[in-house]
Amino acid sequence: MGGPAGAGDTSAACGGAAVAPDARTDLSDPFGWLPVAAPAEGGGPRLGRLTTPHGIVDTPAFLPVGTKATVKGVRPETLREVGVQMVLANTYHLALRPGAEVIRDLGGLHAVMGWDGPILTDSGGFQVFSLARLRRLGDEGVTFRNHVDGAEMTLTPESAVAVQNDLGADVIMALDVCPPHPCPRAEVEEAVRLTLAWAERCRAAHQRADQALWGIVQGGVHRDLRQRCAERLLAMDFPGYAIGGVSVGERHEALCQVVGWTAPLLPRDRPRYLMGVGEVRDVVASVGLGVDLFDCVLPTRNGRNGLAFTADGPMRLRNEVWRFDRRPIEEGCDCPACRRFSRGTLRHLFAAEEMLGPVLVSIHNLRFYARLFAGLREAVRAGRFHEESRALLDRYYGNH
Amino acid sequence: MGGPAGAGDTSAACGGAAVAPDARTDLSDPFGWLPVAAPAEGGGPRLGRLTTPHGIVDTPAFLPVGTKATVKGVRPETLREVGVQMVLANTYHLALRPGAEVIRDLGGLHAVMGWDGPILTDSGGFQVFSLARLRRLGDEGVTFRNHVDGAEMTLTPESAVAVQNDLGADVIMALDVCPPHPCPRAEVEEAVRLTLAWAERCRAAHQRADQALWGIVQGGVHRDLRQRCAERLLAMDFPGYAIGGVSVGERHEALCQVVGWTAPLLPRDRPRYLMGVGEVRDVVASVGLGVDLFDCVLPTRNGRNGLAFTADGPMRLRNEVWRFDRRPIEEGCDCPACRRFSRGTLRHLFAAEEMLGPVLVSIHNLRFYARLFAGLREAVRAGRFHEESRALLDRYYGNH
Repeated sequence: MGGPAGAGDTSAACGGAAVAPDARTDLSDPFGWLPVAAPAEGGGPRLGRLTTPHGIVDTPAFLPVGTKATVKGVRPETLREVGVQMVLANTYHLALRPGAEVIRDLGGLHAVMGWDGPILTDSGGFQVFSLARLRRLGDEGVTFRNHVDGAEMTLTPESAVAVQNDLGADVIMALDVCPPHPCPRAEVEEAVRLTLAWAERCRAAHQRADQALWGIVQGGVHRDLRQRCAERLLAMDFPGYAIGGVSVGERHEALCQVVGWTAPLLPRDRPRYLMGVGEVRDVVASVGLGVDLFDCVLPTRNGRNGLAFTADGPMRLRNEVWRFDRRPIEEGCDCPACRRFSRGTLRHLFAAEEMLGPVLVSIHNLRFYARLFAGLREAVRAGRFHEESRALLDRYYGNH
Repeated sequence: MGGPAGAGDTSAACGGAAVAPDARTDLSDPFGWLPVAAPAEGGGPRLGRLTTPHGIVDTPAFLPVGTKATVKGVRPETLREVGVQMVLANTYHLALRPGAEVIRDLGGLHAVMGWDGPILTDSGGFQVFSLARLRRLGDEGVTFRNHVDGAEMTLTPESAVAVQNDLGADVIMALDVCPPHPCPRAEVEEAVRLTLAWAERCRAAHQRADQALWGIVQGGVHRDLRQRCAERLLAMDFPGYAIGGVSVGERHEALCQVVGWTAPLLPRDRPRYLMGVGEVRDVVASVGLGVDLFDCVLPTRNGRNGLAFTADGPMRLRNEVWRFDRRPIEEGCDCPACRRFSRGTLRHLFAAEEMLGPVLVSIHNLRFYARLFAGLREAVRAGRFHEESRALLDRYYGNH
């Protein structure tokens, strides 16, 4: 970690299985998260293993986003090859197209995606609050016009769970209310109230024993609201907890504050998932604060736009400076893009608007994130998280 | 061949090498084409092996098109996996973007494409006559405005060879004049005159010993012009010959007539390449008339548009009828799309405009063509070409 690409990588590297062979998790519980190395209390960095019916995830781990049941442009074999352990899919998008009953009748999300590893779905709530129009929010649920054809739809805790039962992911999320930032305190209070009431109803509605339902802590940037929400959710005894309502426009410092307040409130023996967070500085800091799982569109969205992640910071492959450059994106990187293609070729593919450019840089970026997290896990294991994460961030952000 | 998908396939199947292990070609000549089974004279179906500095091609063979140094959306590892033996790239497009000198300085087409197998480049002439504007054709060459930025450019036999020397394909083509169809006889005569004069100059200009320069027979739908052109080219002793000027709007019967006249005029011991032809009925008939190599955009262009090739004819994957269909495109097909994805998923990916749809159906279609040609080779080997090709066409076109 912090060294050249490829160094410090203890994960399932390219070509290998995504799950390390020395897994020693209790397989009798299909949803256990067992700490491998974790502080007795509080929020320091920790190492663990999440067991699901579709395999084990070494945490901390990063989940690429497969919005519409596909990680854009990347085949599932390639996800495995670059070390992806678990993926996320978006309930809102799938409920619109092709429809949850279509996914169910096609055999569920694992069959549809061609991915037999663990999957997590969100509840759809986040997109209702970010994409849909004309929302009416009430105790019962939320009514909105969808962003595709403008049809009016209603999402309730019960329907959010029913749709996710149809989709069939290993981990599903309770319906929450995710306020924007900034936001008046009264609105955040109301969001917490509804989030808690809905979490209880989701728990009651959840039908499938082969799926784990996790709760989501809201509360904006208010410590007392985060605390109230966490305490009430803990009383409901979810098998996993997410921190929601971050990465909605607040600064890095505010994100760290919220995570620093909330993570230590969550049970030591349950997984902690920070929703929608993927900036390098945010994930590194949050691992340091005791978060286990992350999801974000950044590696694939940036990849499609020709922005590659490297240990020395982002690289814009559309740039003319690469025209005659025979080097790979990152010297020593073992990803399929770096093994075969030069910066010069990638610049040409983006200039010529060739599909292979977005595909290859997405693959590289997924490998970057898998390697980043493998390095973070190794640093936690070695008890060197703070030194190594500092060095990594200094190199990435150029603070030499 | 003619049986279910996957049957009768003796080629390098999925996961295997693209070259059969029992290759017995004389490797002392880097460009030999050796007949394995060929009629003593005339134009019947034949079997052979083309040797190039980047590997051996079992013929008859189909070349996918990598217009801008990429077979659209398909990684080179996948080309190998589905049994592709050799690819074509377009000189005209590459000379415009990124420029031949860029390809040369990046290490040549093999390095740029990430493909270490055989490559063929056309001369650029076909695109000058089909895409460019304001052409002025003369003895010296052809001046035109390119279709990208409208800049005026000149292509001469010497520059067409120089550009292809820079690109570095294993097989390069002489600059020809490709008339449209229909076309006045006087224009076709002039095209033959220039094609012959330019072929001679290309031969004189060709610099690289590690590239084979092949000549192109023109002559439209006129038997005497085809004959004159072929005889004059044979006197120039090219190591391979193409039949050009077909697939420009003439009907299947006219194509068969032209190939039937021309193929028997070409040397028994040299490869014969039918440019730009890929329709199933056209390639099957032309193999029967003694053609060894084909290239066409059909498998990838149709794949991008959601049209899949199957032994029972084309399948439109955007069709609503597939919404709940769990079957693969083709039962028994061993391609990466059919191994993991249902028609239902593919329909969804096209409806949602997800990149993975075009990628997967392109891959399936490339596998279809590789399997089709493996079946044709096996039929020739077994001396059953005419029965089996009849059965295959009846099934594909539904003449049951």
